[in-house]
Amino acid sequence: MPTTRKLSSRAADLPASPIRRLAPFAVKARAAGRKVYGLNIGQPDIPTPPEILGRLKTYSDPNIPYGPSQGTPEFLETLQSYYGSCGLKVGIEDLFVTTGGSEAILFVLGVIADPGDEVLVFEPYYTNYSGFAALLGVVPVPVTTPAEKGYHLPDRAVIESKIGDRTRAIMLCSPNNPTGTVYTDREMELLADICRKHDLFLVADEVYREFTYDGLTHRSALTLPGMDERTIVVDSLSKRISVCGLRIGNVVCRNKELMAAILKAGQARLCPPTLGQHLGAGLMDVPASYMTEVISEYEGRRDLVFDALSAMAGVSLEKPEGAFYVCARFPVDDADRFAQYMLEEFHHNGETVMMAPAEGFYATPGQGREEARIAYVLNRNDLTAAMQALAVGLSSYPGRF
Amino acid sequence: MPTTRKLSSRAADLPASPIRRLAPFAVKARAAGRKVYGLNIGQPDIPTPPEILGRLKTYSDPNIPYGPSQGTPEFLETLQSYYGSCGLKVGIEDLFVTTGGSEAILFVLGVIADPGDEVLVFEPYYTNYSGFAALLGVVPVPVTTPAEKGYHLPDRAVIESKIGDRTRAIMLCSPNNPTGTVYTDREMELLADICRKHDLFLVADEVYREFTYDGLTHRSALTLPGMDERTIVVDSLSKRISVCGLRIGNVVCRNKELMAAILKAGQARLCPPTLGQHLGAGLMDVPASYMTEVISEYEGRRDLVFDALSAMAGVSLEKPEGAFYVCARFPVDDADRFAQYMLEEFHHNGETVMMAPAEGFYATPGQGREEARIAYVLNRNDLTAAMQALAVGLSSYPGRF
Repeated sequence: MPTTRKLSSRAADLPASPIRRLAPFAVKARAAGRKVYGLNIGQPDIPTPPEILGRLKTYSDPNIPYGPSQGTPEFLETLQSYYGSCGLKVGIEDLFVTTGGSEAILFVLGVIADPGDEVLVFEPYYTNYSGFAALLGVVPVPVTTPAEKGYHLPDRAVIESKIGDRTRAIMLCSPNNPTGTVYTDREMELLADICRKHDLFLVADEVYREFTYDGLTHRSALTLPGMDERTIVVDSLSKRISVCGLRIGNVVCRNKELMAAILKAGQARLCPPTLGQHLGAGLMDVPASYMTEVISEYEGRRDLVFDALSAMAGVSLEKPEGAFYVCARFPVDDADRFAQYMLEEFHHNGETVMMAPAEGFYATPGQGREEARIAYVLNRNDLTAAMQALAVGLSSYPGRF
Repeated sequence: MPTTRKLSSRAADLPASPIRRLAPFAVKARAAGRKVYGLNIGQPDIPTPPEILGRLKTYSDPNIPYGPSQGTPEFLETLQSYYGSCGLKVGIEDLFVTTGGSEAILFVLGVIADPGDEVLVFEPYYTNYSGFAALLGVVPVPVTTPAEKGYHLPDRAVIESKIGDRTRAIMLCSPNNPTGTVYTDREMELLADICRKHDLFLVADEVYREFTYDGLTHRSALTLPGMDERTIVVDSLSKRISVCGLRIGNVVCRNKELMAAILKAGQARLCPPTLGQHLGAGLMDVPASYMTEVISEYEGRRDLVFDALSAMAGVSLEKPEGAFYVCARFPVDDADRFAQYMLEEFHHNGETVMMAPAEGFYATPGQGREEARIAYVLNRNDLTAAMQALAVGLSSYPGRF
């Protein structure tokens, strides 16, 4: 007897992963013996510091119990010290540990917005914001950041034109995934001013905080004056110490009412991972040199990828300022089709590249069709080979302008 | 400048943890040097098997990467073998690994119900269902199971009278938290029949599958004929191998459309914890004797607690058949006030007990006011002392009938 019971409308609204469509082509290419350089996701190859990984061996409890919903006292204190080391004064009561930055986004959107409420996002944007919004019935309203300006913010009037009765917050990711843009002091202050004027929350995704290049520094939303009740920071250990699979993130917010609501949401899921917090509690034991070296490595990779892309005829891009992504515009009919071609039909000496077509990072239909995101998460030898394959592939692609 | 920006209505709808109100009284009692036997939450004292905990030392990757959204192949195969060992034939494509049973509940409710849709729950019920429902705007509709029948299901007509246009599913937890009830074959088949007749999903929370006593066996919803498209099982490693803090659960469902929707929800949060799956992949290495001994230990504890409660004048309860909880009715004005009295005003030779008042497990106002849940998660010496303190406390409580 076949069911007639339908799934929810919400299930239909959940976006399919824009990268997932290409996965079977990568599997096939690898099965055919080709080397596929995976530049499509932000999974760094950097080793986790021994001060973190070594803690696997020091776990001594007889079982793995629930911790407090807010996080373990040990890890909360570590986070407080970490923010202190970044010059950010944060109380324990301003912190809530989550299962990755992902759960932080889910809880934050949940407590600030009801179904039908809107949140401004700067496109191209981290595509998973849309997944959580769909689960909650919240509507992301895109404000396009122009590629030719390095994806920096458009004029104030453009941003304000998107604010309506249902707007509850502005969301920003800095340093940015997928563009690598680091927003300036002036831009941060502009957003704060708009939030105050229009009575909005500012949700700042700062998981790439440390990853800035050319001596640029990142301006945390936590430093914006007069914004303590409005600023909500979403954070994660994932990229900082190469522990994406640990699933440890957190919220930082000085608005007590909001934190009380997040506690209620967090109590329903009992607690974030206990083992992950045990490992994360080693964060302050990691020497500063680890991060310095990692950032220097990424800066070198960025230069390599930027130079290689800039040398390809018809490719246009601005030099990314942070994170480990670059968005480039390719001289092609459709970057999604081009990415599929690279996996399905092309190889250069048995090698090819997997990229993330950028259309999935836009909410405005038709935007980003010629753009793709490249994550420079491989070592420089691999990146050099990948850029060579990409250059040859681009010149041979039939849909090239 | 104080914010005027309000939180969402959803934030207000999120239920506060019913147990949380008592926590400060327990903290105070402990600070005053009293021993508080914590029988208020399902955090077992049982050690995790060495076949699981030992895997902490065999983790050999240089970092902790994202895994696939569905779960790692290694852990999915382990789960398939586990269900096979339970006599349940399950394909890899029928499985989805989640961050605890909690995330399984969130995703399942999300893909089957829209805001305003209803899900039948048998009260008293696992209170966190309400938290996820509130986050999603889904409405739990309670069907009371009578204490005097050991919390078994009421008549078919009573259940059907609660089904309306917006009803999407029936949710059941067996063996039950908070009552310890194990639903019979007849009850499971009745629910299946109602689901088929009214075109509903059946969501079965089976995280206590193994915990049945007196030779009773648990009937999995996965064995119900003609229900492959409707049955959704929510599961978790937490209680089975005493890894509540690992946060590894899963969904089992043979409805491909539903599993595709859960994949979309799961992609937004990237992946469940990688380390937790690495540990969980040792599940089939745990000897059968581990579970036999654990169940025998719990059966002994249940007998001890049941006998002790039965011997207290005015306390009424049925013998629980599974899980590690018992709900009892106390001869008091209000079990919540009684629980607070036990922590705030009472001790017996410096010892007292923390219980979970059952009112929080009911959605119907006023229900469960004289009931409390006791989790028999401590060793028998501690339980004996706890029951002595409870008996003395009950006889001295001013609000006793």
